Amino acid sequence: MMREIDTVHQSTPLLTALQQCATRSTATFHTPGHKRGKGVGKALQELLGDRVFAADLPELPELDNLFAPSGVIQEAQALAAQAFGADQTWFLTNGSTAGVIAAIVATCDPSEKIILPRNVHQSVISGLVLAGAVPVWVNPEFDPNWDLAHNVTPDAIAHALTQNPDAKAVMLVSPTYLGVCADVAAIAHLCHQYGVPLLVDEAHGAHFGFHPDLPISAMQAGADLAVQSTHKVLSALTQAAMVHVKGDRIDRDRLTKSLALVQSTSPSYLLLASLDVVRWQMATQGKALMEQTLQLAEEARSRLTQIPELAILESTRSPGVFDCDRTRLTIHVANLGIDGFTADDLLNQQWGVVAELPTLRHLTFIISLGNTKDDIERLVQGFEWLREKPKKSGSSVIGHWSFGSLVIGHQSFKDKGHSVLSPKLSPRDAFFAQHEVVPIQMAATRISAELVCPYPPGIPVLVPGEVITEKAIALLRQILVMGGTLSGCANPKLETVRVVKTIS
Amino acid sequence: MMREIDTVHQSTPLLTALQQCATRSTATFHTPGHKRGKGVGKALQELLGDRVFAADLPELPELDNLFAPSGVIQEAQALAAQAFGADQTWFLTNGSTAGVIAAIVATCDPSEKIILPRNVHQSVISGLVLAGAVPVWVNPEFDPNWDLAHNVTPDAIAHALTQNPDAKAVMLVSPTYLGVCADVAAIAHLCHQYGVPLLVDEAHGAHFGFHPDLPISAMQAGADLAVQSTHKVLSALTQAAMVHVKGDRIDRDRLTKSLALVQSTSPSYLLLASLDVVRWQMATQGKALMEQTLQLAEEARSRLTQIPELAILESTRSPGVFDCDRTRLTIHVANLGIDGFTADDLLNQQWGVVAELPTLRHLTFIISLGNTKDDIERLVQGFEWLREKPKKSGSSVIGHWSFGSLVIGHQSFKDKGHSVLSPKLSPRDAFFAQHEVVPIQMAATRISAELVCPYPPGIPVLVPGEVITEKAIALLRQILVMGGTLSGCANPKLETVRVVKTIS
Repeated sequence: MMREIDTVHQSTPLLTALQQCATRSTATFHTPGHKRGKGVGKALQELLGDRVFAADLPELPELDNLFAPSGVIQEAQALAAQAFGADQTWFLTNGSTAGVIAAIVATCDPSEKIILPRNVHQSVISGLVLAGAVPVWVNPEFDPNWDLAHNVTPDAIAHALTQNPDAKAVMLVSPTYLGVCADVAAIAHLCHQYGVPLLVDEAHGAHFGFHPDLPISAMQAGADLAVQSTHKVLSALTQAAMVHVKGDRIDRDRLTKSLALVQSTSPSYLLLASLDVVRWQMATQGKALMEQTLQLAEEARSRLTQIPELAILESTRSPGVFDCDRTRLTIHVANLGIDGFTADDLLNQQWGVVAELPTLRHLTFIISLGNTKDDIERLVQGFEWLREKPKKSGSSVIGHWSFGSLVIGHQSFKDKGHSVLSPKLSPRDAFFAQHEVVPIQMAATRISAELVCPYPPGIPVLVPGEVITEKAIALLRQILVMGGTLSGCANPKLETVRVVKTIS
Repeated sequence: MMREIDTVHQSTPLLTALQQCATRSTATFHTPGHKRGKGVGKALQELLGDRVFAADLPELPELDNLFAPSGVIQEAQALAAQAFGADQTWFLTNGSTAGVIAAIVATCDPSEKIILPRNVHQSVISGLVLAGAVPVWVNPEFDPNWDLAHNVTPDAIAHALTQNPDAKAVMLVSPTYLGVCADVAAIAHLCHQYGVPLLVDEAHGAHFGFHPDLPISAMQAGADLAVQSTHKVLSALTQAAMVHVKGDRIDRDRLTKSLALVQSTSPSYLLLASLDVVRWQMATQGKALMEQTLQLAEEARSRLTQIPELAILESTRSPGVFDCDRTRLTIHVANLGIDGFTADDLLNQQWGVVAELPTLRHLTFIISLGNTKDDIERLVQGFEWLREKPKKSGSSVIGHWSFGSLVIGHQSFKDKGHSVLSPKLSPRDAFFAQHEVVPIQMAATRISAELVCPYPPGIPVLVPGEVITEKAIALLRQILVMGGTLSGCANPKLETVRVVKTIS
């Protein structure tokens, strides 16, 4: 059986077709205009080499059609479904963003409710605006020691479902950016009791399920739909992603149409072929590659733990932490006497060690199948050097405020760790309303037209359509004073904010 | 002055920054997972070479942020605006599709009207669904000799504006797929008299304005916004595009937010850098490159014209044909005794000559800056061979029906060549309504949930939200019998059609 599957997965139908087209000698009178590279500017050719242009081809008959696949794309997607544990898989060239938006558009009609964690990605807000769906927010659990938002609990989702039996879908973000997983199986079970599909933004978990020491994947856990950024942790080209569906709670025709709404009708075959190769790679060597990746991560963990000033986020099962991706390292650096941004700059400039995400007190590192022992060596040596490096006096003054406690404590919708806030306007109505920009001191009682999300902890304080309170303004100011940053909003210094115009 | 501009345009800020990042030795702990190619599957590396992966990088601080640009992307976009005659330019990684959708979302609130030609691209229907805008259709002029839809006249737009003074925008497709331009300047003038912005889907016209023998660009003609597929005729990578804006009739903040709704938050720097290089290429050598492209096209035209069975679409100013792009060749092949699809197959298989678009009687060829004399030689020799090749007896029976006359004649909204049809439901309402699939013989009087667009002439007979009439069904059947094809719909044989469910 295993051998049989392996044989099937040795083929790469889409890549092979592209290769044949790319190496054929033709007189080319179709798009793209560079005609297999002959018209490309020399600086681009110097950067990317020649071959990539030969393969940058349009939807030739041999290459199938992404939006009505019946040939090599259909075959490649079917193989991917098998490898990633889905009944059906769609390849995306507009990132997980397209998958998240389409998941919402495919399950929620305008004005219908969707249950979501408050710490969703920006693309979810886009999905709410485009679908016209109304969010029912659930607070993630919060870790005061690390000042980090983790995941949501089954209890919190159950509560939201009880309060909102008319909700049309539940969406999770699992894993979080830092690799913390929800109990997807328990939540899927709950959702299905209510007859509601579970959609999982699994952007950072495309490698899950290929090794017993990694968390199980959303598909394995019984989710109805999962969106994966195949480029983030696996080896696809940036912007290439997949949507997987299992079972019949998702209307697949509607999902196909929803994906077509938000993706280029001239999809890049470079991106598509990279997805076919990832499937080949993971189906045939996935376990070995993940074994090696996990070993590198464990080596980094064990050596960095020997530096007494550092602490590494570990999986301790607790509410909101069902499992952790051990290939992701979040390292607390504040006890070195410097903040995370400074540590990031120094590691980058002196050692060429480039982190994924610096925050005030932590750095997050992604270890993937592309990393080597040498990378880990540099990472460890960099931190050892950082430890020894004389710090400017006074630079160790990083307080122990918990930004997250402030934000979670502030959320007026918090009720025993989970509950629900109805916005004044739906995100769609707030988007299309007339806007004006007002000074922050004039903003109280107005309806926000923008997202305002402080880092840490990455939980929005304001989502478009919500009323701006005095408390919210005070909180955001406090976070800025303490060294936090705001994202999502046009003026990250919070001198002004974009609000819905009052009709006078 | 000229020299000064040229010097500015010698720089490639975005490409240069990417080059520096790509050649730096780092220990990489950020996305993408392939880590500068080290983790990539070998088949992909064999196809694309090594270098492309080193440059496939995320939004590192040195590389700016596409959605809040303040560094090298901002600089590159400013240079592009200058080169393409705009006040501001946005780079797109989700094709012209993203630009067209954002143009509609940025100008029309839900339920507001937009005036458009009936032969719009699929992405416009997506824009209508996502924005919730209501289309006011204007018929394109029709050429019965060629059985082709051309462009719309200023008169038709004036009529629509008079009838719909509450419309919020006018959108044109100029040039059409076949290179036929509207009188954009006259239409812009009209729109501005009504205080309405003119949006131009200029997907096939990114090269316009770089040579006096090419049509003027939408920006030069006074349009407020133009969307260009920089990959289709210039040398960007597939899926890379630009939006240009001039003047203050477009709310640029809202356009920025609208673009962010429909584009990946992990944009590909391969695509972005290719846009920077196209700007460099066209700003510094555009005229010479277009001179050479036009010469190749003229050579093809003059040599192909000597084959008496062929006819080439030429620009004869007439209503709906203000100008033609002479780098695009549409060749009537039916007098060779074969249809366009067969001609396309034969040229492709025997000569490696690959056209952009075959239809029943024509082939369309795109000649661009990537073509060579050798390409033209093969094209001409291919047609000469095709002329001499013995045809199967009976294969010359291609009737002289005019599909387009049928469609245009059918359109019940036709009123002196231009007028307006209100759909029963908006495209958005039709998209989100409950659907069912019914046999075509049961479909009359139902509301279509899908686009049904016959080729030729590429003018939709049904748009989502419109009532299906007996006449429409008869027309579509007739087109199929005559050898035409249907696109946009789930069942292109028209045995069934997807309709809005009746509430019983």
